[in-house]
Amino acid sequence: MKIGVIGSGSWGTALSLLLYGNGHSVKLWFRRKSYLDEVKRKRENFLYLPDVKIPEEIFLSADIGEVVDDSEILVLAVPTQHLRNVLSLFEFFDCKNKIFVNVAKGIENKTLMRVSEIVKDVLKMNENYCVLSGPSHAEEVSRKMPTAVVVASFEREISNLVQSVFMNKYFRVYTSDDVIGVELGGALKNIIAIATGIADGIGFGDNTRAALMTRGIAEIVRLGVSMGAKFETFAGLSGIGDLIVTCTSKYSRNRYVGEQIGKGKKLEEVLKSMVMVAEGVWTTISAVELSKKYNVEMPITSAVYDVLFNGKDPFVATSELMGRSAKPEVWGIS
Amino acid sequence: MKIGVIGSGSWGTALSLLLYGNGHSVKLWFRRKSYLDEVKRKRENFLYLPDVKIPEEIFLSADIGEVVDDSEILVLAVPTQHLRNVLSLFEFFDCKNKIFVNVAKGIENKTLMRVSEIVKDVLKMNENYCVLSGPSHAEEVSRKMPTAVVVASFEREISNLVQSVFMNKYFRVYTSDDVIGVELGGALKNIIAIATGIADGIGFGDNTRAALMTRGIAEIVRLGVSMGAKFETFAGLSGIGDLIVTCTSKYSRNRYVGEQIGKGKKLEEVLKSMVMVAEGVWTTISAVELSKKYNVEMPITSAVYDVLFNGKDPFVATSELMGRSAKPEVWGIS
Repeated sequence: MKIGVIGSGSWGTALSLLLYGNGHSVKLWFRRKSYLDEVKRKRENFLYLPDVKIPEEIFLSADIGEVVDDSEILVLAVPTQHLRNVLSLFEFFDCKNKIFVNVAKGIENKTLMRVSEIVKDVLKMNENYCVLSGPSHAEEVSRKMPTAVVVASFEREISNLVQSVFMNKYFRVYTSDDVIGVELGGALKNIIAIATGIADGIGFGDNTRAALMTRGIAEIVRLGVSMGAKFETFAGLSGIGDLIVTCTSKYSRNRYVGEQIGKGKKLEEVLKSMVMVAEGVWTTISAVELSKKYNVEMPITSAVYDVLFNGKDPFVATSELMGRSAKPEVWGIS
Repeated sequence: MKIGVIGSGSWGTALSLLLYGNGHSVKLWFRRKSYLDEVKRKRENFLYLPDVKIPEEIFLSADIGEVVDDSEILVLAVPTQHLRNVLSLFEFFDCKNKIFVNVAKGIENKTLMRVSEIVKDVLKMNENYCVLSGPSHAEEVSRKMPTAVVVASFEREISNLVQSVFMNKYFRVYTSDDVIGVELGGALKNIIAIATGIADGIGFGDNTRAALMTRGIAEIVRLGVSMGAKFETFAGLSGIGDLIVTCTSKYSRNRYVGEQIGKGKKLEEVLKSMVMVAEGVWTTISAVELSKKYNVEMPITSAVYDVLFNGKDPFVATSELMGRSAKPEVWGIS
């Protein structure tokens, strides 16, 4: 099929390579023309996915029209906080029959919209939408490490089609009908990754990290179920699966942000030093708002917010979290 | 209170230190007199928990009577496959009013009994029994890293009492009434840790590991629920919490066994080189039997069994697991 990938970060690039390898015709859109020119020369996305050659057959462009116009499938690999602006460029094209595959993981600030809601809001459609999510670091997918993900849509034919487009021997795609659950799991786990990064940065151990992750998925479930997601989605690849990889992997940017802050750096300073976007920082702001809106207790998310934006001491915050009064252990109840 | 700890491995020793720190009177039992004499001289369990001093006030003994006789609480920190033999030494003592806290994580071969069933079988009681489990590497607990665990019993007063005995600022104890779920979660996760170790040893990445862990907890849930455990227990500290720490930590012996095998070593050779016991190797045998008995599909457990005991190639086994046909993703269904 003809596929346009919107966003040339590490994930957009890795998926372009995967889709090309699966026999599709692939176009990859770059936001910055100057960077694109360098990438074209080197046939390598050296800032975001270094040491991986981009075959000549993958068409690289900074012209959104060239990429969008004749594509049957559009992969949205743009950070959530920028997606609305990028989507607004689409209004000049007929998108009615195109399929949108979102691979970003965030919740828009202020509007508190998930990506499917942003797409619906801007493009006035959602039946052709699906979200692909799960434990899938771009660096490893580009090296063909065995990986398993989930694709969720409102219409079963869409997820089935997208499954067949992405699936291959090393990239397993499961299907789901729980768009809300898959979107929320992917977005909210980044906050827990920041929390575990903070604990790691302080020098706490594997026990602490595992406790934070376990309590973390519990608060994700509480919010998610309140928002209409299915409980069991969070037990799957896009829930605990993605949580695990993000909280324990050296590749995770969100964990990295937390780790630097746990070591005493300031947020601004950490973000300035990074090439890539850590979506969890912005998702934290939205999640705190959502927890108030749905009246759900989210102690880890609140603590991360206080550390990131209110100058709370990371050690004090983590110790308080671990020291909350111990009650009977039940999912759904703090 | 007066507490006897039966078994002087790393966990028995770390818990002795914790209980002593909580103000209790602690006796720790060693199986081997010759080793005990060395430990007494150095006041350090140098083989199993090196670099941690054992205070003079903790009474060390190889005489089971000295430890059991006047203890009000007995902590069972003996590998599951040896527990029956050790418990049989207890018949000379009046155990009716003692409380048993099991901290081992296994399922007895041949009988397929969980630890609570072994205790009931040998000591003819179970109302005074509880199991303490969760993500808690001994090395970190002995260094006072923040840790959270669960204690489950058939009688609420028992778990409440044991909670108050173990709990302190860095060691949070939650309570549960799901003995079966807590016992099974702790035992079965070791098999998944071997599986992830194998994948790590082969050279697969974080994505593969996260996928195995996610599919792994799903098969644990399937067996557990068939055996009478509560679904939500596996979502907690003794389920995914412990799974996470065991599958990702450098301290995990079960993950280590898998890693060595993934690198091409033979099981016998790996086990010979280890001081500590990797309970998961034996639990795999029991779990395969249980999966047949309860007619539950456990593809990862079966694959680990084939690699450990039937000489199956680790690379082929892992690739087959990751390449199983992708279906809709639902917990409880493969």
